[in-house]
Amino acid sequence: MTAQIAVIPGDGIGQEVTPAAVDVLKELDLGFEFVEGEAGDYVLEEAGTPLPEETADLARESDATLFGAAGETAADVILPLREIVGSYANVRPAKAYPGLEAVKPETDIVFIRENTQGVYSGIEEEIADGVATLTRVVTRDASRKIAEYGFDYAEEHGYENVTIAHKANVMRKTDGLFLETAEQVAQERGVDYETELMDALAMKLVMNPEDYDVIICPNLAGDVLSDLAAGLVGGLGLLPSANVGDDNALFEPVHGSAPDIAGQGVANPSAMILSAAMLLDHLDYDGEATRVTEAVETVLAEGPHTADLGGDASTEEFTAAVIDHL
Amino acid sequence: MTAQIAVIPGDGIGQEVTPAAVDVLKELDLGFEFVEGEAGDYVLEEAGTPLPEETADLARESDATLFGAAGETAADVILPLREIVGSYANVRPAKAYPGLEAVKPETDIVFIRENTQGVYSGIEEEIADGVATLTRVVTRDASRKIAEYGFDYAEEHGYENVTIAHKANVMRKTDGLFLETAEQVAQERGVDYETELMDALAMKLVMNPEDYDVIICPNLAGDVLSDLAAGLVGGLGLLPSANVGDDNALFEPVHGSAPDIAGQGVANPSAMILSAAMLLDHLDYDGEATRVTEAVETVLAEGPHTADLGGDASTEEFTAAVIDHL
Ligand SMILES: CC(C)[C@H](C(=O)O)[C@@H](O)C(=O)O
Ligand SMILES: CC(C)[C@H](C(=O)O)[C@@H](O)C(=O)O
Repeated sequence: MTAQIAVIPGDGIGQEVTPAAVDVLKELDLGFEFVEGEAGDYVLEEAGTPLPEETADLARESDATLFGAAGETAADVILPLREIVGSYANVRPAKAYPGLEAVKPETDIVFIRENTQGVYSGIEEEIADGVATLTRVVTRDASRKIAEYGFDYAEEHGYENVTIAHKANVMRKTDGLFLETAEQVAQERGVDYETELMDALAMKLVMNPEDYDVIICPNLAGDVLSDLAAGLVGGLGLLPSANVGDDNALFEPVHGSAPDIAGQGVANPSAMILSAAMLLDHLDYDGEATRVTEAVETVLAEGPHTADLGGDASTEEFTAAVIDHL
Repeated sequence: MTAQIAVIPGDGIGQEVTPAAVDVLKELDLGFEFVEGEAGDYVLEEAGTPLPEETADLARESDATLFGAAGETAADVILPLREIVGSYANVRPAKAYPGLEAVKPETDIVFIRENTQGVYSGIEEEIADGVATLTRVVTRDASRKIAEYGFDYAEEHGYENVTIAHKANVMRKTDGLFLETAEQVAQERGVDYETELMDALAMKLVMNPEDYDVIICPNLAGDVLSDLAAGLVGGLGLLPSANVGDDNALFEPVHGSAPDIAGQGVANPSAMILSAAMLLDHLDYDGEATRVTEAVETVLAEGPHTADLGGDASTEEFTAAVIDHL
């Protein structure tokens, strides 16, 4: 089978790091067919929408999508794309790499973020002048799905600790349903788990990230806590992510389009290349996924480094070094 | 004028740290009248409710309230109490103290948390089996009130940087209204400000807390980000807070009832005594507020320390040392 990979570089450094990841994938010679699509601020200017129908169709019909970053239009691009690929799980590993500066070098956590509900429902209204409401939605089905995904992920990847994040002391019915459902999944499987209020968890992650392996979170909690963890490991520049659906998936770095450094060829492509490794894992090329991840880790440990890590390697030089170590 | 101070110790270490703070206040001889009220888990057992009507009335009628902590019933005690005192602003300073271990010793931030709205609306329903909704509410009036409070606070306390936290790229109408209103307040005053997405802010706070002074936040954002900042300065044990209303206010440590160490007389009363200092400041005893704060800072710097900070002083010994340094 030849897999079709949609490639959507988007804005800013997305245009630089996405080709880097594609180069690495091509080097593996797996017969992937890469089809490029357009999205982002620059497309809005040209086409009147940041996510043209063709790009949406491309993502829908491909076996997997690589997405770079979008600028001002980020929410209008990435939220629909996540929906188009039917992704219910946003997988965000946050890991410190040996040799790189980190606030907490012992961090090695995978956030399993619910990707469809909560305050991301899109149900919002200004119901009267100066009064706005948003309907936060949580269903048992979606909660069960993300919890099952999270406990499966922990088992498959050999992680011991699973923590369910929530704010059920305040959001009693919505997060209450999320928590109760996730706990039930754990109990049905007879596996251990912890539960933690998202506020207390924010504090504990900063102080003792080594206590956590896999954290299953409602949508916004996952958004915020995974960015917090990015801070612990030295910033967003190194964090890949996967948006996983039943038949389709989208892979993107957690970082944005970084307009301040865009166009100079100096962006760190690690997060994007590691996202490509998650794509390989998803398409069952486990060995290749490991090769790519280890090659990135080697270059991060030995150099050359890009400017964000204090080096002066270009995006291309970094990528060439990764390819050398494959 | 003699101020009446409601004293509600609550559960666990609340019973130990609250008397410590009252002892410090008494030492100042300001003629306060202290009236004790009951609330918390132990009251639920006795009275069928964790917050009896008399306690609610006491808080309502007092000039200010000191609250310790509650256990399982925390949300059922503190959320109604905040409402009873009409508090719209939750003020949470997070500051590292010289000589104490901290992930980020340069942290010195005051969170100004909106205290009435957002996902704390209490409007929640299981609308069908397995489908729950919560109505997140944001109004222009409440947003204006918290923004004005925040900019006033920054000016009065000599802070330069004010940051407005939000997630308006996703919660476009609710946080959109919050953001737009807060920006308008800043523009009317002609003062500088920054805006920051709450997820990006979580990362930046971990990496560069020194970039921030005052952060104005929607309710849940303030809850989570202030706990994050507690992690940066060494935990919740040192963080005081004020719930400020137009005619009334309630002061409480950010920490909980700590059942694991309760009853042993070893709890660190710093957060509670610093909350009492915020009470003094609120009642316009500025000089006394500074005396109490500096006395706590001196004892934190010189010892004796309680067990949480590696010492073996009891709550009483620590409190006596603070009183010695007044
Ligand atoms: C751009 C934004 C809509 C998005 C989100 O909130 O999910 C981003 O913060 C992320 O985490 O990928
Ligand atoms: C106990 C809980 C309801 C409360 C809150 O969410 O406000 C607590 O976390 C706090 O921050 O004081």
